[in-house]
Amino acid sequence: MTGDDAAVVLLSGGMDSATAAYETAADGFALHALHISYGQTTADIEATCARDLAAALDVEQFLTVDTEHLRRIGGSSLTDAAIPVADADVTSETIPTSYVPFRNANLLSMAVSFAETAGCSRVVIGAHSEDYAGYPDCRPAFFDAFQHVADLGTKPETSITIASPFATWSKTEIVQRGSDLGVPFGQTWSCYRQAPPACGTCDSCAYRLEAFANAGLTDPIEYEPGLTH
Amino acid sequence: MTGDDAAVVLLSGGMDSATAAYETAADGFALHALHISYGQTTADIEATCARDLAAALDVEQFLTVDTEHLRRIGGSSLTDAAIPVADADVTSETIPTSYVPFRNANLLSMAVSFAETAGCSRVVIGAHSEDYAGYPDCRPAFFDAFQHVADLGTKPETSITIASPFATWSKTEIVQRGSDLGVPFGQTWSCYRQAPPACGTCDSCAYRLEAFANAGLTDPIEYEPGLTH
Repeated sequence: MTGDDAAVVLLSGGMDSATAAYETAADGFALHALHISYGQTTADIEATCARDLAAALDVEQFLTVDTEHLRRIGGSSLTDAAIPVADADVTSETIPTSYVPFRNANLLSMAVSFAETAGCSRVVIGAHSEDYAGYPDCRPAFFDAFQHVADLGTKPETSITIASPFATWSKTEIVQRGSDLGVPFGQTWSCYRQAPPACGTCDSCAYRLEAFANAGLTDPIEYEPGLTH
Repeated sequence: MTGDDAAVVLLSGGMDSATAAYETAADGFALHALHISYGQTTADIEATCARDLAAALDVEQFLTVDTEHLRRIGGSSLTDAAIPVADADVTSETIPTSYVPFRNANLLSMAVSFAETAGCSRVVIGAHSEDYAGYPDCRPAFFDAFQHVADLGTKPETSITIASPFATWSKTEIVQRGSDLGVPFGQTWSCYRQAPPACGTCDSCAYRLEAFANAGLTDPIEYEPGLTH
């Protein structure tokens, strides 16, 4: 199915995009999943999770793209082994080392190309409000600006909505909503640092654990032994 | 050299981006060349031309990125062998089959990522006014919108200007300016259809030959025998 009822969903393998995919399916869209591996340290486990989620969602199409340029360009602890992944500092307002320069513009550009070719009317990204404490390319104003680029840069007859359904949500709200939608959180990955078990101490683990705790739910994935959460 | 005096130039191997690179060098910028191979039919000859041009320009850095996603997404005669490259119809106002969906957003996103990491203050693209008869992602309004995305989607301390110096120029004016700047046009490639000799009849060859003829100059590259131009 394509057209007004079809959407390209950026499916990273993480819990936010997984919930965004389930939300989009619940809204009645057929899904075309796009998983982009950009050379990040945890690429393999993320790809496995994305594939499992796509199967669980019974998507129309699952496209995996390996694109090396963000790793080759470097500048981030996620793609450059020479830059260590820092422990979480959830109160900091500086840009974390995990910032991949202008990443979401790259991901959204690929997704719009895919959507235009496949005839989809929507591109869905799972960014949320706690991302943009640190990442400039996760803010609602950024997505609004990208919408304008997509309107101008595609064919006149193409109309693609850039949807970021959780842009103003907290991660706790995503856990709650995902739980209601039946998202298999055990098939999602968030840790920046390593494959299972998750480290529990990087930014991404810290936010995830806090969200599950706030929601009064237990995170089903495996963490480093001895971690108290 | 990086900073205010350094620019990332998208160097496709074509005559427009070659002239844009020489223009940017003449303006005093150190060049960081980015050549992106996206699976187009003539990728090999374009990469050779880009490398030769980068050497002639004595660039600070030459980064080649092979990114498969636009070929895998398809939808264009440039990347999908099942879609034939059409002969030129320079009077048509419909989108040609050579349109690669949302290509320039993908290329500019990569270039901004590179510029932010390398500390460059400018990204240069050689699109010109005759491109946007057919390609929506070559218009000045598109570049203005992308500027806004780059301003919002990078670090607060990052300031990158999206420069399209030929956005309002004709291809004839580019040939004239390139000739004044000493651009080695024999090391540039435009044909959509094949490696040397150029076909002379696709859109890209037709515009190139017309521009050289209008400028009263001879195109130094080799064309199919028997072609009258």
